[in-house]
Order: sequence, then C-alpha cells, then structure tokens
Amino acid sequence: MARINENYLKLTAGYLFPEIARRVGTFCEAHPQADVIRLGIGDVTEPLPPAIIEAMHQAVEEMGVRETFRGYGPEQGYAFLRETIAAEAYGVRGIGVAADEIFVSDGSKCDTGNILDVFGAENVVAVTDPVYPVYVDTNVMAGRTGPADENGRYAGLVYIPLTAENDFVPALPAEKVDLIYLCYPNNPTGTVATRETLTGWVHYAKENDAVILFDAAYEAFITQPEIPHSIYEIPGARDVAIEFRSFSKQAGFTGTRCAYTVVPRSLTGTTADGTRKELHPLWNRRQSTKVNGVSYAVQRGAEAVYSAEGARQIREIIDSYMTNARLLREGLEAVGMKVYGGVNAPYVWLKTPGGMGSWDFFDRLLESAHLVGTPGSGFGASGEGYFRLSAFNSRENVIAAVERFQKVVEA
Amino acid sequence: MARINENYLKLTAGYLFPEIARRVGTFCEAHPQADVIRLGIGDVTEPLPPAIIEAMHQAVEEMGVRETFRGYGPEQGYAFLRETIAAEAYGVRGIGVAADEIFVSDGSKCDTGNILDVFGAENVVAVTDPVYPVYVDTNVMAGRTGPADENGRYAGLVYIPLTAENDFVPALPAEKVDLIYLCYPNNPTGTVATRETLTGWVHYAKENDAVILFDAAYEAFITQPEIPHSIYEIPGARDVAIEFRSFSKQAGFTGTRCAYTVVPRSLTGTTADGTRKELHPLWNRRQSTKVNGVSYAVQRGAEAVYSAEGARQIREIIDSYMTNARLLREGLEAVGMKVYGGVNAPYVWLKTPGGMGSWDFFDRLLESAHLVGTPGSGFGASGEGYFRLSAFNSRENVIAAVERFQKVVEA
Repeated sequence: MARINENYLKLTAGYLFPEIARRVGTFCEAHPQADVIRLGIGDVTEPLPPAIIEAMHQAVEEMGVRETFRGYGPEQGYAFLRETIAAEAYGVRGIGVAADEIFVSDGSKCDTGNILDVFGAENVVAVTDPVYPVYVDTNVMAGRTGPADENGRYAGLVYIPLTAENDFVPALPAEKVDLIYLCYPNNPTGTVATRETLTGWVHYAKENDAVILFDAAYEAFITQPEIPHSIYEIPGARDVAIEFRSFSKQAGFTGTRCAYTVVPRSLTGTTADGTRKELHPLWNRRQSTKVNGVSYAVQRGAEAVYSAEGARQIREIIDSYMTNARLLREGLEAVGMKVYGGVNAPYVWLKTPGGMGSWDFFDRLLESAHLVGTPGSGFGASGEGYFRLSAFNSRENVIAAVERFQKVVEA
Repeated sequence: MARINENYLKLTAGYLFPEIARRVGTFCEAHPQADVIRLGIGDVTEPLPPAIIEAMHQAVEEMGVRETFRGYGPEQGYAFLRETIAAEAYGVRGIGVAADEIFVSDGSKCDTGNILDVFGAENVVAVTDPVYPVYVDTNVMAGRTGPADENGRYAGLVYIPLTAENDFVPALPAEKVDLIYLCYPNNPTGTVATRETLTGWVHYAKENDAVILFDAAYEAFITQPEIPHSIYEIPGARDVAIEFRSFSKQAGFTGTRCAYTVVPRSLTGTTADGTRKELHPLWNRRQSTKVNGVSYAVQRGAEAVYSAEGARQIREIIDSYMTNARLLREGLEAVGMKVYGGVNAPYVWLKTPGGMGSWDFFDRLLESAHLVGTPGSGFGASGEGYFRLSAFNSRENVIAAVERFQKVVEA
C-alpha cells in the first residue's frame, strides 16, 4: 500500500504566492478593466540587459552546431561560471571562496529547500518570524516539525521574532538550535544585519556546533558600505555557514533561472556518535545524484553578469529599483505610515494603518486601489499587522502606486 | 549540534558516471594523444535542430524587451508547453492526459529523485537489477534502505533481476511492494516491455495498492509498433502510475534541460490510518514550494519539439542514432558477441567476452581500444558480466568504434 508523506498534511493553507495569485486572479476576472499594479511577489519587471541577451544568443547558437554543442554539463555548474563567481562575487571583496565550493543551480528556492537533504531529521531548526515561507514549509515536509498552532507556528521550530519592537534584530536563541536560517538583506522586512549582529550569530553557531543557512539573495541591493554582503566577511563563518545567492533579483533572472550555493570545505556536521563529517562531499553527492546541472545558455547568461558591460547594465537596473524603493518609502512616510527597509533592499515593510489585519489590508488595497502587495502575516505570525511592498516595477507604476496608496490611507 | 543525514554514508562508491569520468580523465591525462570514443554515458552528440534553436533565439529576444519579458513562470510549467505536450505526446496516441496533470521540470533525473518527497519513509521499494542508479541512490539518501551488502545491494530494497536467463522480463515480486520503478524502453539493457508485461504490472499495482514510477525517457526510440510508448496505454494505469518523460534524449536536451512528469488526478496513496489521498495536490505543493519553474527560453525550445519542422528534424536525428544502434548490434554479433537491446532503444547491452568482470572489461576497452562504455555492474549486481554501449554518437565514431571493438574481441 503506497503511503504518502503525511508531513505534507501538516502544511497550513496554500503557499503564500499562489494564494495571492488566486485572489488577484479572482479580482481581475470580476474587474477586467482594472489596471492592477503588482508590488506583491518580489518579481523583477525590467528586461534582461543587452550583455546577457547577447551571451545567451551566442550560447544558443553554439548549441546548434556540432562542434560547439554541449550535452550534459557538470552537475555542479561549468567551471567558467564557478571560477567567475569565485573571483567576481567574492575575490574582489577579499573573501576567500574557492570555485569548487560554489554549486550552480536553477534557483535559491530550490537550494534552500534541497539543502535539508544532507541534514538529519533530528536537527532543531530556527527561523526568523516573519520569514521566507520556503524555509518553514520545506522543514515541515521533511518532518522536522509537529503540527501548526492557530497562528500558523509549527511545533518544534524555534521562531525568532523580527518586529519594530526589537528593531528587526534577530536575538540569539536561549535554547540550543542546530540549523539557523538567516536572510540578509532581509526578505520580507527589507532590513539588514550589521557586522555585529552577524558576528554574534557566527559565535553562537561555533559555540553550539550549529550551521547557519545564510540567504544573501538581495546582497546586490546593499547601498550602505558598512553592511556585509556575505556571511563569509565574518571571521570563522567558513566553519559554520552555507551561503545562498541568486541571479534572480541581482540580474533579472526570475524567469531565466540561475543561482548558486557556497558550501565551504571547512564546514562540518556530526553523526549520531559525534564523528565530524564534511558537508561539502555530501552536498556534492546530493547534487551529482539528483540534478544534472543548469542549462548551458543560462550559465553563459549568468557569466555575462560579471562582464564589464553586464555589470554596468545591471547596476543601472538595480539603482533604478532602489530609487523606486526610496519613492515608496518617502511616499508612504509622507502620509504618516511607519515604514521599514527599502534602503539596502528592494522591499519596503510597513505597519498597516490602524492596526488592520494583513490580509484585510491586502483585500482593501486590491479593491480600492487595484494595488497588490504581500500580507505580512503570510510570512509568519509576527508579520501580522505588517505589509510588504516590492520596489520591482517601472518608475511609472511606482509613482502611480504611491499616489493610489496615499489616497487609500487618507480616505 | 548540526547532524548530517547519515543515510548518505550508506552510499557505496561514487555515483557511476562521475566514476567513469574520473577513470577516463586519468587515462586521457596519461595518453593525451589517444583518440577516445565515448559510448559510455548516454549523452547525445548531435546539435539541437534548427527549429529548436530558432525558438530559443526568439525567446531570448523576448527576454530583452520590457513588453515581452517574463519573470517568474508557473512552477508547473507554462500552459503553452503543458497543453502542447498533452496534445502532441499523448492526445495524438489516444491517451488521455490533461495539461494540468503534466509538470514541467529541468530533468527526469531530478523528477525521479524528487518524487520520493511525497511518499512516506515506510514504503517498500522495488527496482529492477540492473537499474538506473538514481532510483536506488535517492532511496538510500531518503532512508528507505539499510546498508549495502558486498554486491552493492541495499537491505530493504526489492531487486527484480533482468538477465538473459529471464529474457530481461521483470517478474512480479512474490512479496508485497509499494513503489515500483520501471524504465521502458529500458536503461541500461535497451530491452522493452510488451503490453502484456506492463498489464501484469498494472494489475499487480492495483491489487497491492502500489504506485508504479514509470520512466519513459526513451519512448521516442521505439521502432516496433506493438510496443507501448506510455504506461497509460494500459487500462487502469491512470490509477496506479506516475510517468516521467524527458526531452534529453528525444530532442538532444541533455545540456539544455527540460523534462516532464505526469501525475494523474486519479492516482492516490494512503495515510497510516488508511485514508486515501490524491497524489496530484501533494506533488503540486512540492513543486510550488521547492522549485520555480524552468527557464522560459528552454520551455519555448521544448515546445518547438512538437512543431511540424521540429518534429521532422528530431525524427531524423533519432533515426540516425537508431541506425548507429543497429550498426553496433550487428558489428558485435558479427564477432560472436551476445547482444541485447538496440532495437527500440539507443542502448546495446552485451555480455562481456569470456565472462570478464564489467569494470575489467571497461578498463580493457579503454586501454586497448580507447573506447568508453559503461560497466553493467555499475547498474546493479545482476549487471555484472554485462556492458552497455550507447548509440549516441556520430556515424563516423560508431563505425570506428565497431572496428576497434572487433579487434579487441578477436585479439
């Protein structure tokens, strides 16, 4: 009798973004004339810049010619991309990450979920609250939690609140945890971790023999020079942290799909009898066995992110998104809203007016302003009463959105 | 203390193809002048045909223009591709598979591994022997086995021998199993399952409430009209089977990455208390949570596989590979070798001469003929004394390989 994985039955409601898509779809069907502006899912809107398009065309062309055709690539990614990342994403900042510690993949969503494969079921997992839902849901699926309570919090997970009250700084847990997800610049709050905060976590991890799963998907949006771009800027982090990075937001790859994960050679976990084992060979084995690498043309596109032209073109787009973030932040503050983030991240996190529930505010914005945002409660119980706006949009849409938003708040 | 997944430590040796790559690499370093012909890993050698290249160029172009740029696509794949597959891969053969039962992915290797996520740890798993190693290794990683014995067989797995003695027909297991992997046309033996064989398995699955994981990655290579292309040609299969298909071999996508998995709406598993649950929503949830869809340009390339031009161009390439298979088969038979497969599949499976061990024969072929094949024992204990040759190569190389092979055998 084929038995299902019953952990899936513990999952509450639908995954956040499909649920938003469903509500927006229903609204648009009922109001086909409505000009809906989407600041909900953090999806880029600007096209891939010319340097990347050119590199992908070139690679597609190679695939049509016998002499340059490529079959199976390395499961870990092509050397040309791994070496470029090692040099251009890390080396230039003085961070020592070797090319063979970099594993190219088709997305950080996949990587942050898949990484759990190499860890035992008995690990105690800590997440911030609010949090990117994938971290939580993949642990539920893997059986590391009990059922959810009425606030959607799963038994067995350790939740670390990020709220205005604690300045969105994740406190070190009183209990011992084994795996810790940190996402900085933070999704969804748009806030950052200082060098001091990250140093505290690296020390905690060292003392407790824990592993930090550091999601740096938004590092390219950092504008303040004192904010770390990588966990590996913190001394000792190579012994305790895995870092996830993505071209999705950095270079507009949400529909093109490319990311990478760094598993340092010096990172270890333990067996039940306390034997120390390197995680690098385990992840390498997992990837060799369960994936077949990323499309060649996509990897060539990712490589072009680091060319002189590609880097310049991408910087322009990022700067434009960050101007959007500033316009959102300033526009909302102008009507008395409490607003966080948006300085080193493309997300603005706001307190809903009058203590309104997050989903109620979602519905109100959609109905009255034809604006789509993301309900804070969708990211966790501590996100209730907050709301996320994404700066990924055209300038025109962002300006229109601010005006509409102001009208709703002032109504 | 971060604990590793200790199931990984049960895995024997390296994954087969990396091990082959290692041995070939060592040989080539020592003999840089050697003209090595690779008939080992089943990797295509012919470039993508013009219709696919054109579709991919077009899609890349769209990604560079704001109006046609695509961000996140549906996790399950674009409707344009799912609908085309439903119509052109199934509908034309009179097989009822709905577009929303088709989940597009970046590879069948991923899908056959990932599908285990939605099944409970307690399922008893049956595999053929020899078998595509991914089925076994992913179950070991997921903790569904004990350790391996001296033949590399894992405790807890049910092995169904496929050998010359039983005409490579998988016998129904005497015991009750819950999940059964069947790959037809078969990798590695190149043999096929008749309608009668598959009907027996569907009946077994119905009687035992089991689920068949049917890997049809090689269906495009079937030449005999009576051989089923899909498990769903068997009445009742929609209630008991998941089917995996890939563009890798069908259309030369090993380096481009696209595949799909069919999870019928009527397929169910059970909970511990015997409640019946549909598997479709579980897989949908898994994919929504853990992947972000396949690169847009790649999906447009896959769609072009079914255009009139694309289909014709692909057919020519497949026919050419199958001519290679015939030349290999006939060439080896001409020197008295026992040869199987190669009629409905791009693989020729042979008995090593003089009862030689599979890896010994591998080394001998590499050393004396600069030929790379795949040791049968790499696919399982019952593959010992067999050897796989892939027909994926140029005509020139295949003709040269046959000549070299004949010399080695006659030496």
